[in-house]
Amino acid sequence: MTFVYKSDPVRGAVWAELFARRMPELPFRIWPDIGDPRDVRYLAAWQPPDDLADRFPNLEVLFSTGAGTDHFDLAAIPPSLPVVRMVESGIIGGMVEYVSMAVLSLHRDWQTYRNQQREGHWQTHRVYPASSRRIGVLGLGVLGRAVLEQLSRFGFSCAGWSRSPQQIDGVECYAGADDLRPFLARTDILICLLPLTDSTRGILSTPLFDQLPRGATVINVGRGGHLVQQDLLQALDAGQIGGAILDVCEPEPLPPDHPFWSHPKVVLTPHIASMTQPETAVEAIVDNIRRHQAGLSMNGLVDRTRGY
Amino acid sequence: MTFVYKSDPVRGAVWAELFARRMPELPFRIWPDIGDPRDVRYLAAWQPPDDLADRFPNLEVLFSTGAGTDHFDLAAIPPSLPVVRMVESGIIGGMVEYVSMAVLSLHRDWQTYRNQQREGHWQTHRVYPASSRRIGVLGLGVLGRAVLEQLSRFGFSCAGWSRSPQQIDGVECYAGADDLRPFLARTDILICLLPLTDSTRGILSTPLFDQLPRGATVINVGRGGHLVQQDLLQALDAGQIGGAILDVCEPEPLPPDHPFWSHPKVVLTPHIASMTQPETAVEAIVDNIRRHQAGLSMNGLVDRTRGY
Repeated sequence: MTFVYKSDPVRGAVWAELFARRMPELPFRIWPDIGDPRDVRYLAAWQPPDDLADRFPNLEVLFSTGAGTDHFDLAAIPPSLPVVRMVESGIIGGMVEYVSMAVLSLHRDWQTYRNQQREGHWQTHRVYPASSRRIGVLGLGVLGRAVLEQLSRFGFSCAGWSRSPQQIDGVECYAGADDLRPFLARTDILICLLPLTDSTRGILSTPLFDQLPRGATVINVGRGGHLVQQDLLQALDAGQIGGAILDVCEPEPLPPDHPFWSHPKVVLTPHIASMTQPETAVEAIVDNIRRHQAGLSMNGLVDRTRGY
Repeated sequence: MTFVYKSDPVRGAVWAELFARRMPELPFRIWPDIGDPRDVRYLAAWQPPDDLADRFPNLEVLFSTGAGTDHFDLAAIPPSLPVVRMVESGIIGGMVEYVSMAVLSLHRDWQTYRNQQREGHWQTHRVYPASSRRIGVLGLGVLGRAVLEQLSRFGFSCAGWSRSPQQIDGVECYAGADDLRPFLARTDILICLLPLTDSTRGILSTPLFDQLPRGATVINVGRGGHLVQQDLLQALDAGQIGGAILDVCEPEPLPPDHPFWSHPKVVLTPHIASMTQPETAVEAIVDNIRRHQAGLSMNGLVDRTRGY
């Protein structure tokens, strides 16, 4: 019985060490040095091999090394094989930090002050109370909820939207297609933390932008595929959207001649909002293997019909 | 019996309206339209008049319209006149927002990513867990404590230093001259929130910088007078200090030819970290007048021997 890791080998070496300490009874191997494929029970991968089922006939669980599984071709994975997203405190903490920083930078005119410094210009702008800023989070999974919890502590007016109804203390919760319009109408800073599925691809587009109050801003920390880039450029240039902070793009890296690089209203970061931290990731996987072996449900198990 | 407001008249008009609602029994006047000076019992000012005692023989309380009183010449104010700093939730919230944003921007390489965007350069940098960043706050008044409370929630390793011993849950507290060295030795990001007094003027200088770990960063949201500018420039150029975020300067505005404007390791904002918010400021002053009239101690009463 072995565990195979198939992703960045430098990080793999760190995982190997952590695994040896936490689950020494389970041999840990780094792709392509997989040993006897029939022994492989667990695979953690960013990109699983195309011939997954044939290659590993006795595979019991496929773990994603990232928070999503949109980089998996779920159709090519046997329907009976459990697929598990990465739910670990390192990813959550990083996302809470990034989104807090992004929201505060919009709320407190950080980019304006950076430009003023470059121009040697000393001018103050009015500070609005956090309670007058209406934050809206699309997607109320583990990340969306953690982000809202922290933003609430700053005193922002917080709301969230999800496919199915949710309840979060101090957060106005909207659910389903009918609620999307009123949710958008009350949102000054929109944060996308949705999973990327067939029904969310391209959701950040002209029809959605037009339902936000004029001058609203957008933070995309979901996936590049959520955004219709041309629609954002048009909305920015028309003033309907006041600014955008984008951590994800399609493709990544963004091509050198892409207009986002130099757009004065776009802040771009190279998919760094949140990264799996080896310590907490291995902890989460070991915990899930123990749960699986004990017949318990695993954290982050993907519902194959929803796609997340 | 009247209340006189002596500061920005535009804000004064907002105060007048709020006062009329909250304390209609006390006539509110905006400098220089003060009426009979003998009627003036309360003065709220950024700069009190030089002839304060002669002009207002029956003055009972002097309120500062700002969080500090370092802009008052305390020697020129009768020793028996109570002087009250502004302690109100608007100032606190603004400071917590600004310092959180500043710390997160240092923690998550925001400036590096801004520069990379300008250069069209897509490169990720390692994300360190918040627990590995050691935050140190100089000054544990209302603002320092509120800032530490919020930063603790992100998981940073938090410590504070103050003149007299304090206790804060989850924060390593250091006190007095002897503790300054060990406090600085464990601090990666230093935040100055001290009052400006004879004993804190120029505290951010070479001897202090040299006690920080090499490459530590500094956030000054106290007063410009805390910082010896030439020492900071030397420490930045020598690499002892890795970067500085400065919201306060001496003088303000900073002269156009000052090296801070264009220094690649200095982020400058024009004293906007936190501003008195009329709603909550008037609430705090009305509450203090009621306390004073009832013979209770006022919030923010300045200890004239300490100077804050």
